[in-house]
Amino acid sequence: MKAEILTVGTEILMGQIVNSNAATISELLNDFGIDVVYHTTVGDNFQRMTRALAQAEERVDFIIMCGGLGPTEDDLTKEVLAKHLGEELVQDKAGYQKLLDYFEKTGREHTPNNDLQVLTLKGGEVLKNEVGLAVGSFIEKNGKFYAALPGPPSEMRPMLSNVLLPKLAEKTGANGKLYSRVLRFYGIGESQLVTKLADLINQQTDPTIAPYAKEVEVTLRLATKCKSEQEANEKLEKIKQEILKTEDVGEFFYGEGEYNTLANVTVELLKEKGVTISAAESLTAGMFQSTLCDIVGASEIFKGGFVTYSQETKAEFLGINAEELTQHGTVSEFCAKEMARCAREKSGADIGVSLTGVAGPNTLEGKEAGTVWIGIATKEGVYALEHHFARSRQFVRMNSVMKALSMVHKELLSCS
Amino acid sequence: MKAEILTVGTEILMGQIVNSNAATISELLNDFGIDVVYHTTVGDNFQRMTRALAQAEERVDFIIMCGGLGPTEDDLTKEVLAKHLGEELVQDKAGYQKLLDYFEKTGREHTPNNDLQVLTLKGGEVLKNEVGLAVGSFIEKNGKFYAALPGPPSEMRPMLSNVLLPKLAEKTGANGKLYSRVLRFYGIGESQLVTKLADLINQQTDPTIAPYAKEVEVTLRLATKCKSEQEANEKLEKIKQEILKTEDVGEFFYGEGEYNTLANVTVELLKEKGVTISAAESLTAGMFQSTLCDIVGASEIFKGGFVTYSQETKAEFLGINAEELTQHGTVSEFCAKEMARCAREKSGADIGVSLTGVAGPNTLEGKEAGTVWIGIATKEGVYALEHHFARSRQFVRMNSVMKALSMVHKELLSCS
Repeated sequence: MKAEILTVGTEILMGQIVNSNAATISELLNDFGIDVVYHTTVGDNFQRMTRALAQAEERVDFIIMCGGLGPTEDDLTKEVLAKHLGEELVQDKAGYQKLLDYFEKTGREHTPNNDLQVLTLKGGEVLKNEVGLAVGSFIEKNGKFYAALPGPPSEMRPMLSNVLLPKLAEKTGANGKLYSRVLRFYGIGESQLVTKLADLINQQTDPTIAPYAKEVEVTLRLATKCKSEQEANEKLEKIKQEILKTEDVGEFFYGEGEYNTLANVTVELLKEKGVTISAAESLTAGMFQSTLCDIVGASEIFKGGFVTYSQETKAEFLGINAEELTQHGTVSEFCAKEMARCAREKSGADIGVSLTGVAGPNTLEGKEAGTVWIGIATKEGVYALEHHFARSRQFVRMNSVMKALSMVHKELLSCS
Repeated sequence: MKAEILTVGTEILMGQIVNSNAATISELLNDFGIDVVYHTTVGDNFQRMTRALAQAEERVDFIIMCGGLGPTEDDLTKEVLAKHLGEELVQDKAGYQKLLDYFEKTGREHTPNNDLQVLTLKGGEVLKNEVGLAVGSFIEKNGKFYAALPGPPSEMRPMLSNVLLPKLAEKTGANGKLYSRVLRFYGIGESQLVTKLADLINQQTDPTIAPYAKEVEVTLRLATKCKSEQEANEKLEKIKQEILKTEDVGEFFYGEGEYNTLANVTVELLKEKGVTISAAESLTAGMFQSTLCDIVGASEIFKGGFVTYSQETKAEFLGINAEELTQHGTVSEFCAKEMARCAREKSGADIGVSLTGVAGPNTLEGKEAGTVWIGIATKEGVYALEHHFARSRQFVRMNSVMKALSMVHKELLSCS
């Protein structure tokens, strides 16, 4: 089944709010096995809403209108839908009782416009609102499905999940469900990943493989429509293994999950192995340590560290020899190794990490913006690697943190 | 002029990302005096993109396509636009040189598909990408305007503001131009601000006053259409002064500008006054110091500081008396004052800042998540204030950093 999401609201067209409802509805419908092929947004305007509705009918089987169910003059959605389908609007009794109770309980003034919220299409079904007052509507007509959902996300989401989708499942019967997994990669660009996997992606129709470039990483979404979770898992695991064994691909994979992060994977692995970590940061000025502590329970593996932004604090806070530091410069292998070693020693942690380099936009000590040394100290010894990042100051700093996490992650995987 | 925003990307229809670009573009176009009347999103599909383009042409004068300029097979936007308008795609020389430089600098593999990013419509104008590699396109044809912008918000926004809108202003001529200013507030909620300014906002038609709640701050956009910049400035300055003199409003104002931040205002003020700063951070674990160093030239006022996440590092790195620390606990006025004092002394900075508290989600030392003490040490003495933040771990940590910046900012304004 193909669907279109028709969101309504002048505030969306003004850019006053981001249309997160379209994303939420899309995600839930896709998981349900419905292909969302269009999003359209129109203002609170009777004619434009009607035209958008007519147009959606020509290209999809299921139209979800969202927004415009409230009590004000601007709220036209159910009126538009009713007129367009030649249906009558009637009051939902349960909804009206809830509305009366609400006004009695809160002592607010019950102005007549509020009653518009509990109207519903006579030939359809009411969609109960578990959170707010405005009821939704669902109707099947001429072989198409139509739904009207409220705009506030806190009301829309439970109505969609708990009321609309179960009704739809009844009507359509379960013809397989969509299962998906997200594989996450750091250190490889989207174009490079797609090139390496070209044959696989081109041959592949089920599961599908969809690459997506995030700000500093790339993900692959694997998706398949199956009757059972077990069948889906087998298919998804098989294609995952094929991807990971591809040359120059598997080494950049760090974890699975829509909301997973490299910081999360690294902190969890530190916890699992009982390894503690500290850092001394120059260009990132605390961002690496702060990123570790985004993760709940980071205190198990992180006790503290240093921000040594100037040459002097590198010597004073960490005890690096000032003369040697001047000789080698702060953007150097020497400096990165010393910072990592001293951070480890001063904190008593198992791993010491250092980041020093040129955030930009200007050069530093004759080194170009984007030149970054990252050091790792363990009980086995110390090493540092030079990296070059391009683009903005923000991007250089963020990528430095990701690269340092990635080096720690690899270090943990390689040690027994 | 009426516009439609045509965003492209299967990941939007899958609900994997929220279409924030549509909101950003809408906001900026509305400010520019262009009415955005439709948002449409289609997947990376040649036919559907072409059909959506043809349909947009029938109802608006300006079509902004966004997304699909990257290097993969899925990136079809410029190809669709060129074919639809009967234009040829040619390589942008400057863009290609930048691409070559990028691959040389980073040492990444330059696969041929990357070159697709620097194609542009022959009969139109190139839109330079200040951040990434993919160039945009702008063309006027048959009395309509068309633009293609990149999908990553960090690339799209500067291309729209700095490149596309100035070109559009040239083409359309100034029939009175829209001038706007953004006033930024921290520490007051949107509903509170709007309530305080209710009379002013309701009476006001020119300049318009539009409030907007960001993640941890609120902005007011003042806008007016004028023939000259001078006339606009006078009108905008007058209303700004009225707003700032309103009771319980002016004290929360920290600066002006679309891209301004509290960190930027604070760092610039530190520079201007020649005041240096250091910090010791617990729950924020380096985020405060990292936020200062987002700003170019932070090294003038920041040399380094400490991340003291555990009780032990607070004692060891800073020299706080361990017994007293145990007695008072780490979420205490005592701890915040000592951390600020020691950070100042150890670093030799003029101001020492401390952040200690409970990021959550769990309680700590019997204190609820969101309880945060922030300390400020200067040559005059030390003080600390208790704050309570709600919502998520991320929100508590981010708000702690904003509050600390705000305290430093006020400290700087109050000292001569």
